[in-house]
This record gives sequence, C-alpha cells and structure tokens, in this order.
Amino acid sequence: MSDAVSPLATPFPAMPPVTGAHIATVRAGYKAWERHDLTLALLDEGTAVAGVTTQSKCPSPEVEWCRAALPLGRARALVVNAGNSNAFTGNRGRAAVEAIAARVAAGIGCQPSDVFVASTGVIGVPLPIPTAEAGIDAALTAPQVGWEEVAAAISTTDTFPKGAMARAVIGDRTVNIVGVIKGSGMIAPDMATMLGFVFTDAAIDPLFLQQMLNAANGRSFSCITVDGDTSTSDTVLAFATATAGNAPLSSFDDAGADAFAAALNDVCLQLAHLVVKDGEGASKFIEVSVEGAESDRSAHRIAMSIANSPLVKTAIAGEDANWGRVVMAVGKAGEPAERDRLAIRFGDTQVASGGLAVEGYEEAPVAAHLKSQEVRIVVDIGLGEGRATVWTCDLTHGYISINADYRS
Amino acid sequence: MSDAVSPLATPFPAMPPVTGAHIATVRAGYKAWERHDLTLALLDEGTAVAGVTTQSKCPSPEVEWCRAALPLGRARALVVNAGNSNAFTGNRGRAAVEAIAARVAAGIGCQPSDVFVASTGVIGVPLPIPTAEAGIDAALTAPQVGWEEVAAAISTTDTFPKGAMARAVIGDRTVNIVGVIKGSGMIAPDMATMLGFVFTDAAIDPLFLQQMLNAANGRSFSCITVDGDTSTSDTVLAFATATAGNAPLSSFDDAGADAFAAALNDVCLQLAHLVVKDGEGASKFIEVSVEGAESDRSAHRIAMSIANSPLVKTAIAGEDANWGRVVMAVGKAGEPAERDRLAIRFGDTQVASGGLAVEGYEEAPVAAHLKSQEVRIVVDIGLGEGRATVWTCDLTHGYISINADYRS
Repeated sequence: MSDAVSPLATPFPAMPPVTGAHIATVRAGYKAWERHDLTLALLDEGTAVAGVTTQSKCPSPEVEWCRAALPLGRARALVVNAGNSNAFTGNRGRAAVEAIAARVAAGIGCQPSDVFVASTGVIGVPLPIPTAEAGIDAALTAPQVGWEEVAAAISTTDTFPKGAMARAVIGDRTVNIVGVIKGSGMIAPDMATMLGFVFTDAAIDPLFLQQMLNAANGRSFSCITVDGDTSTSDTVLAFATATAGNAPLSSFDDAGADAFAAALNDVCLQLAHLVVKDGEGASKFIEVSVEGAESDRSAHRIAMSIANSPLVKTAIAGEDANWGRVVMAVGKAGEPAERDRLAIRFGDTQVASGGLAVEGYEEAPVAAHLKSQEVRIVVDIGLGEGRATVWTCDLTHGYISINADYRS
Repeated sequence: MSDAVSPLATPFPAMPPVTGAHIATVRAGYKAWERHDLTLALLDEGTAVAGVTTQSKCPSPEVEWCRAALPLGRARALVVNAGNSNAFTGNRGRAAVEAIAARVAAGIGCQPSDVFVASTGVIGVPLPIPTAEAGIDAALTAPQVGWEEVAAAISTTDTFPKGAMARAVIGDRTVNIVGVIKGSGMIAPDMATMLGFVFTDAAIDPLFLQQMLNAANGRSFSCITVDGDTSTSDTVLAFATATAGNAPLSSFDDAGADAFAAALNDVCLQLAHLVVKDGEGASKFIEVSVEGAESDRSAHRIAMSIANSPLVKTAIAGEDANWGRVVMAVGKAGEPAERDRLAIRFGDTQVASGGLAVEGYEEAPVAAHLKSQEVRIVVDIGLGEGRATVWTCDLTHGYISINADYRS
C-alpha cells in the first residue's frame, strides 16, 4: 500500500472471524516488495458461493474461471494474488489460473472448480506459476490472520485497508457478515481493479445468495465511479460457510431473509463507499442523487453522467458551486430530460429550478457545504418517478500525479 | 484569450476575405475585459446556410433559435457573443436572442429568422440585452476586420486564434472556404463551448450545403473530444454567399461538388484538430484509430471510449506505453470485441496481438513515439470491417489547474 493515506480514510473496523473460514496470507513475491501478496481462504465443506464480475469484454482469465465455477454454487477455497492481474496474457494466463486451482485442490482434497481465484495488479504480464505454487504451499500451513491483514494483503496501491461488517438475526441465531475490498488506489500506473470478498457464517442456498448479492451489487458497487474506467478484473465474491446453525435461507419467504439481505446490502454499500474514499487523488466524497427521471435506469445513467464528468469533479475539487456543469452533464447523458423542468440542489440549497438559476439563492450555505469532505448534489429531472443515487470522488492534481507523473 | 499559449498552437493561416460577407467586431463588454467580444457578419442576399448543433438535452436558447431558422436555408447575418453563453437562463435568455435578431433585422432590413446567433461563456447568467443592442449598433457601422480578429473576438479562454481554409474548383471558378472556431480553452471554470463558422463565396443550394456539412461534421467535429463533456451551446454554421459566380451546386451530380465537399471536409477537419490542440492543459495531440470493428459506428464508439479514458490520457501525458489501459478502454466500451483477437499499435510498433503482449517488441521506437507531440494509437478489433478515427489530447495537471484551481 501507499505511504500517503487518503484524507478520506477511515479506521479499520473491529471484525470477528467467520467460523468455517480459515484465512492466511503469505509473501509470494509477485513484486519486489516486502509484504504479503497472496491470500488463501480455506472454507468448510458446505460453503455456498455467489459472485458478480466485470462487464468488460476483455476480462481476465480469473474472471472467466470464477464465472465458470459460480453456477455450481459451492466453494472450498479462495486465492487472491496482488501485484499482477494476469489479465490479457492469453493461454499462459489461463494456465496460471488452472495451476493455482489444481495446487489448492490437491492440497485440501477438493475439486479445482471449488477453488476461486482473483488477481490484481499490472496487466499483460503472465502470473508466474512457480511463484504462485510456492506461495500456496506456504499458505496451506500458515496461521489464521485478522481481517485487517487480509485487506492489506489483497491491496495493490490502495492507501488504507478497507473492511466492513454487519450482523443479522435469523431465527434464534445471529450471523456475521464481514467483507474486505481493495481498489481505486493506483500510485503506479497499473490497471485499477476492484476486488471484494464477503464472508458469512450463515447457511444460505447459493442461488438465493446470488440473488441477494445481485441486488446488493446493483445498489452499491454498480453505483460508484472514480474515473469511469472499468477494470478487466473487477470481482466480488460472497461465501456463506453455513456454520452459524441457522435454518438455511433459500428465499425471501424464510424468516430472517429480509434481515440478512439488508445486512448484506449494508456491508456491500460500506465497502463500495470505502473504495470511493480511497479513489485516486480523492479529497472529497460526492453523493449524486437524481430523482424525477423517467425510470430508475434513466436516473442511474444521468447520475453516472454527472459523477463521471471531469468538469463537475474538478469544480467540486475547487469547492466551486458551478451548477452549470451539472446542467451540462444532465444534457449530455442522452436520457430524457427537459431543460425547463430541471432543478438542482447543492447540499440543502436549491440553486437552480425551472430551467434557470434560483434568483438570489443564499451562497453562504452552498460555499460551506462545498468546503466539507462530503458533498451532496441532488438533481430533479421533473419528468417521472425514477430515482438513483451514486457516489464518486473529486478529480484533483493527485489523480494526474498518480497516473501520469509515475512511469510503469 | 489566455496568456499561456498551448504548446500545440499553430500560427494563424493567411485567409482571404469571402466576398459577400462583411464582418466586424466590437467590444460590447460582456465581461470586464478590454477586447472585442461581439462579432457581426453581414451576408449578401442569397446567402445559403447550413448548421449542426449540440445534442445536449439542455441546449442554449441560441441553439434553439438556430435550429428553428436553419430549415429556411437562408441567412443575412450572424451575431456571436463571447463571455456569456446565455444557456440555462429561461425566458430571459430566449428574450435576449429575440432582441438581438430583431435589432439586426431592423438595422439591415431583413427577417429576424435571417439572423443567426451564437453565444459562449458562463452558463446561467442571462445575456444583458442593452449591452448586446449597443454592441450591435456599433458593429453595424464598424469596418471589416480580418479573420484572425474574428477568431480572437469569438474566443473565450482559448489560448490561440483558430482558423482554416481551402479552395475548390467548380467549373471555371475557384471558390474559397474559410472557417474560424473557438473552444476547449477554459481557464476560468466556465462551460466549454465549441463554436465554428465556415464561410464560402460559392453558390450552393442550402439543402445540399446541409448534406455536405453533416457529412463533414461526422468526420471532424463529431470525432474530437477533450474531456467528454458535451457543451450546451456547440454550434457550427456554414454560410455560402453565392458571389463566386459558379453554377450553383445542388447535388453530387454537379461538376465541382465532389471537390467542394472534399475542401469543406478539409476545413472542418483542420478546425476540429485546432480545437483539440487548444484542449485544456493539452501537451500532446492523440490520434486513435480503430479498425476491424463490427461496424463503423461500433469502431467510433470504441475509439471514443479510448479517447475519453482518463487512464489512457494520463498514460500518454506521462509518455508511458501502458497499452493495458487501451485494452481496458476497449473492454469497457460495451461494443462487440473479442479479447483474444485484439491487436494494438503505438505509432508503427505492434505492442499486443492475439490477446497478449507481442513477445519482445522493441521498446525504443515506442518510447520515441510517445515523446513526440503527436501520438498515434491503432487498435484492430479483429471482427469485421468497421473503422473510425478520432482525436483527443492528453490529460495533464494543466486540466486540473484550469478547472479546479480557479474559482468562478
């Protein structure tokens, strides 16, 4: 991880172990660094798994491997490599993933398809198989580590370790949901990658876990952006070890399912926000809400158009209430909008409505709001009931320094 | 215009007057600056006009005015205001445009719909009508100025005046096509606006002029991006004064039509490139070509995904041959692509093909190419015959300084 910690960093929360998940980290040595860079989670038999992966048309072989294994719904292990994404490496990349899965499967006696693999780091360099195998061998006998160590070991150029947890009551049992995530720090000009892993001791049918994860993803990871550049390797996996003794959840009709889904949403949203708070060069956390759009989908696209606009993001960095740039970003989104119905708030202050500036709006509260670390922009399109909220960070000199001033 | 001139600036070319177009500039005083900021072009009776305007859903009232007048196909005057875009100003903005057209129409004896209006500058502030009217009155009796003065008067935060010209032979006549353009400099955090004006002495049917302008626009202005942020006010208008004495052009069957269209394309492409070369903070001019896509449209979208990627643009700024970021941008474009058929060239050097790095490609010519001011990226998707080329600039600290460090 980097030396310069994001000003938006938050302390790592206290998170309990998840029974049924034994996690170790070791230094495989994917880069010339003195830190752990290989994480191995061993999972009890009966662990269910669900996952979401990048929409990229150029996915890493790890993403393809996970996609193929997910429909089986069960997992016995997870390997995370940091320092090399193994993406765009042709047959050699595929061979590396197969070798990793085979090594773990032989070590613990399971099917290779029970082993999930994720890698993050530089693109275009095949993952060295002997390095991975030696790391796995060491990790198979290494002691259990805490979640903060896991979050650190899966990081590349993140500036702080990121984790979140929540609890849910299912019948007479309280289950834990913990998650760790990496992403959005990119001090060396490597490919940004978001990897997130959620572990719970609850017993959950894998199809239902997938259903809940899809829903949580739609409101969390799919609603954040740092620079609009989608990675080749984004992966979020959820593992349910079924050690809590709850009556297994298989649909929303089951008691406790709603509570569990809410807690899963909570963890995913916390993790997603942490990625934004570690966004490259970020000095402000920005929430963009769009309401009154023709549909939720349309609202989401407009919100993303605002959140990805370099002009909006630099204005926020400059603490400048330049709402005209929000108008611009609504206009360019390509979604239904009518200029003369548009209304815009910064914080709690209405700055524009009915297609023009609010005459004599108070500038002091707007200026004060923009000086804070968390900025909120609300846009009412005035057409319908569609709404969406997304989160991003500002665009600063830090982003340029991280991505242009350093050479790969 | 700004004091710090873009390192990519080129000298203003020698451009002849266009007979039938009398152009004057005056200081209306839209901002507290000592420079001409209102341009008035008076056009001979019989002048044909064609135009293309922003796709924004929040267009300026000037854009709406031009759109309404364009189908009539004739023009007698053009007014360009610099320093205030008059966008997102409700009824007061519409009233300002109507007042401007009425003032000019009364002054020269024409219909208000013969008067075209364009404005550029800060958004959300209604254009002051008395200021505009006084400026028009002064301009109506002001002497003709040269094209460089026109290019300067329509500028806002551009760092150099931008013009281009070409000639075409139609039968026994040689006609001139000259154009001026502003855009992409934004030293104060105002809304970026691209305004371009092309004048020719050729006689051309307005519908045919529109057809040729649409085609030229598709290969020039629609193929450039600085930051992906579409303005509310983008407008390109072409005026044909019909003073050259050529047999009027009304279709591609007419002698000289192909030559004229080629010359018009040439002027539009030169102007579009000049805008990129004055892109905010630009230090390099980047050409992105995509071939082998499923269709030309698909190729264009992939090329724009690459050209708008902040990670690609910062890599070029850092003179870093980080082709993995090009893979990422292809992958996120949402267009048909197959990772294992992808090939990438930087300059003349193949760096990736068949879904992985070219083993042992020569790094020296790639490094040398990236050190030059003009960088060329070619991506072969390997699926079909679709191709497109777009142009952009790199993303540097200059962009952040221009848009975040200064307050509006």
